[in-house]
Amino acid sequence: MTRPLAVGIAGLGTVGAGVVRLLRENASLIAMRAGRPIDVVAVSARDRARDRGVSVAGLRWVDDPLSLATDPSIDVVVELIGGANGPARALVEATLDAGKPVVTANKALIAEAGDALAARMDGAGGNIRFEAAVGGGIPVIKALREGLAANRIDNLAGIFNGTCNYILTRMRAEKLDFASVLADAQAQGYAEADPSFDIDGIDTAHKLAILAAIAFGRQIDFGAVHVEGIRCVSALDIAFAEELGYRIKLLGIARATDAGIETRVHPAMVPLTSPLAAVDGVNNAVVIQGDPVGRIVLQGRGAGAGPTASAVVADLIDLARGRTTPMLGVATKSLENLPSVPISSHRGAYFLRLMVVDLPGVIADVTAVLRDHGVSLESMLQHGRSPGEAVPVVLVTHETHEAAMAAAIGRLAALESVQEPPAMIRIETA
Amino acid sequence: MTRPLAVGIAGLGTVGAGVVRLLRENASLIAMRAGRPIDVVAVSARDRARDRGVSVAGLRWVDDPLSLATDPSIDVVVELIGGANGPARALVEATLDAGKPVVTANKALIAEAGDALAARMDGAGGNIRFEAAVGGGIPVIKALREGLAANRIDNLAGIFNGTCNYILTRMRAEKLDFASVLADAQAQGYAEADPSFDIDGIDTAHKLAILAAIAFGRQIDFGAVHVEGIRCVSALDIAFAEELGYRIKLLGIARATDAGIETRVHPAMVPLTSPLAAVDGVNNAVVIQGDPVGRIVLQGRGAGAGPTASAVVADLIDLARGRTTPMLGVATKSLENLPSVPISSHRGAYFLRLMVVDLPGVIADVTAVLRDHGVSLESMLQHGRSPGEAVPVVLVTHETHEAAMAAAIGRLAALESVQEPPAMIRIETA
Repeated sequence: MTRPLAVGIAGLGTVGAGVVRLLRENASLIAMRAGRPIDVVAVSARDRARDRGVSVAGLRWVDDPLSLATDPSIDVVVELIGGANGPARALVEATLDAGKPVVTANKALIAEAGDALAARMDGAGGNIRFEAAVGGGIPVIKALREGLAANRIDNLAGIFNGTCNYILTRMRAEKLDFASVLADAQAQGYAEADPSFDIDGIDTAHKLAILAAIAFGRQIDFGAVHVEGIRCVSALDIAFAEELGYRIKLLGIARATDAGIETRVHPAMVPLTSPLAAVDGVNNAVVIQGDPVGRIVLQGRGAGAGPTASAVVADLIDLARGRTTPMLGVATKSLENLPSVPISSHRGAYFLRLMVVDLPGVIADVTAVLRDHGVSLESMLQHGRSPGEAVPVVLVTHETHEAAMAAAIGRLAALESVQEPPAMIRIETA
Repeated sequence: MTRPLAVGIAGLGTVGAGVVRLLRENASLIAMRAGRPIDVVAVSARDRARDRGVSVAGLRWVDDPLSLATDPSIDVVVELIGGANGPARALVEATLDAGKPVVTANKALIAEAGDALAARMDGAGGNIRFEAAVGGGIPVIKALREGLAANRIDNLAGIFNGTCNYILTRMRAEKLDFASVLADAQAQGYAEADPSFDIDGIDTAHKLAILAAIAFGRQIDFGAVHVEGIRCVSALDIAFAEELGYRIKLLGIARATDAGIETRVHPAMVPLTSPLAAVDGVNNAVVIQGDPVGRIVLQGRGAGAGPTASAVVADLIDLARGRTTPMLGVATKSLENLPSVPISSHRGAYFLRLMVVDLPGVIADVTAVLRDHGVSLESMLQHGRSPGEAVPVVLVTHETHEAAMAAAIGRLAALESVQEPPAMIRIETA
């Protein structure tokens, strides 16, 4: 065997400890598949004394992570500090400037600063790998960038945030509301103390922005992603979805249209026949539609020490074998100038729930507003009667324009007989 | 851009024509992702005049495919002739002997002669790639050999033959028997005139043998695969499966056990909660269980010109980029000496259907036989009564030994009250 690949790891949280453990436990198997051993020669983390469930004895401890970048005894730096800026970004930049490869699980960094990093690499010749940034243990970056590289990608849609999917799964299975499931998820460690990054869709948007850039061979445009989270998903709408043959999932969707690339993150109703409908709990999945391959579905655990370490070490094995790919699948100069299109140009079907006073003429008023905006209905659902009380009325539209829908919702919200802000959820059949 | 990758293609059937078309239609995209153009410079096929739905004008036509191997103007040979021996094997061997890479979709060749080819390469230094041999457009070889390379693989199970899955799907959906669906599938071109290769499980066994070798890092052992096809699957058993909450699928299963590697192909009952249960029609899917990644599921179209061409061209792009991997993921000398274990050592649960004469004491006789062989029952199903007539009795066992089950079935078949050979289908929960 040739010389070992010498790795320096910055950040020893759950994922960092998982990488150390994996490189140790599967060492001989990894050495065979990598063609040489992969050795951790130095680590850097804030608290040396913390119990990480894995021994760090015998590892060289470095106080300043930046020193890993220029340490001549280190071949690859693994950045697991996290965050789009601060020490994580400084370390990645310094490593690339040193012409050294870096492996990271940092989706925020890639989504928000990836283009700057790519430009930096074009000068210095480093290499940044980030399989673990999207889809946890699912090798989705490799599938898209290499396995499906012969295809024109038409669209992709996926479940990229385990916390949201866990919450939505429990809301449905136990008929609970959002707040109580979130509180319980926090108590159990499935959701952060400050959960906004996950439940407001930012994490999903980071991952989507990365995949969209690779799928369509263009620069990363995180700022253009339309983002809605799951705070507004109600137990009532989950029950209506069930009745209509749908599941509500937080999706990240990227689609090539004639006008440009549509990228959006929002709760969506997917039919039970969709492979995404059955993806429950902390699992992630992505559906990729390519020409000529057709529909490819990839599914697996989207987070956690084991799956994430699996992805990080796969990147290290690729580096050990000398397998390289441009960051976004094509050379930076070959990236296409494909504009992002705003959510207002989206076309699709919609689920709309109104709380209306159960009085004669109300439905006529509601349907007149929709007609005025050119929105046609596929079905309407109302259960029972409660004269004079507020009752839910559910409308499912045929395909229509987002802009028309938004205007119609504005007018519906203003009707005297409509008691709460209308609930709108887009329907996705892909 | 650097010099184009010059490709010679042998075999212009459905897949060969699909590769020519794909390299033409997605040429600029493929050139960007490959870092250079991929050009077809020569083709070889039997009938020059045949209409293939793609123009072969302008392509250099070569009568003897073997000449592609030594042609200095050709960088890579694509073998799409098919068959484990004959001209396909001769071409692959000649190409490897010339130290040139070869890309093939030929699962029979890899499964039956892969070890000999690997040994041949160790001398000459060629490179054989075969993403298209398993799972059609699903990048399963790449996922297993690279994307999941950090994992110890515990087991994998999949649907690898679209013809069988199409037949089983229609049998269930339309409540038809095997023979009539097969005849219709043949008429529609979903099954070959001689369908035995598909429906007797050989094709699945080829693919399973390849995946098992990569998953467990050992030599290919096609001969050790236990193979049963779908001829004996009856509409009656499909209906019982439905009633019990299962789907019947032809699976290829590879599992690491303490005694060695279990590889088997047979109809199996999978619970509706399994991701394989919902894979219908000509789709393929594979479930891979790895440590620490957990369960990964990959799904897509398993055959056809488009998906297969997608996989062939992905291999060409890897070659153009200089990305290489040993044939089975590790160097030949590092392959482990893991024995195959026979089906008789399998442990699992079983579905058993007997046609018994509806007379007092019959069930007592049947259950006594199972008790004598240490087989315990989870449930029993019998509908209605037809005194003196043959009626189906369904038994579902707890986990037991294949050898015990086989012995029990032998004795049950000999009972006077049992009218037909017992139908046995293994239950797989993975």
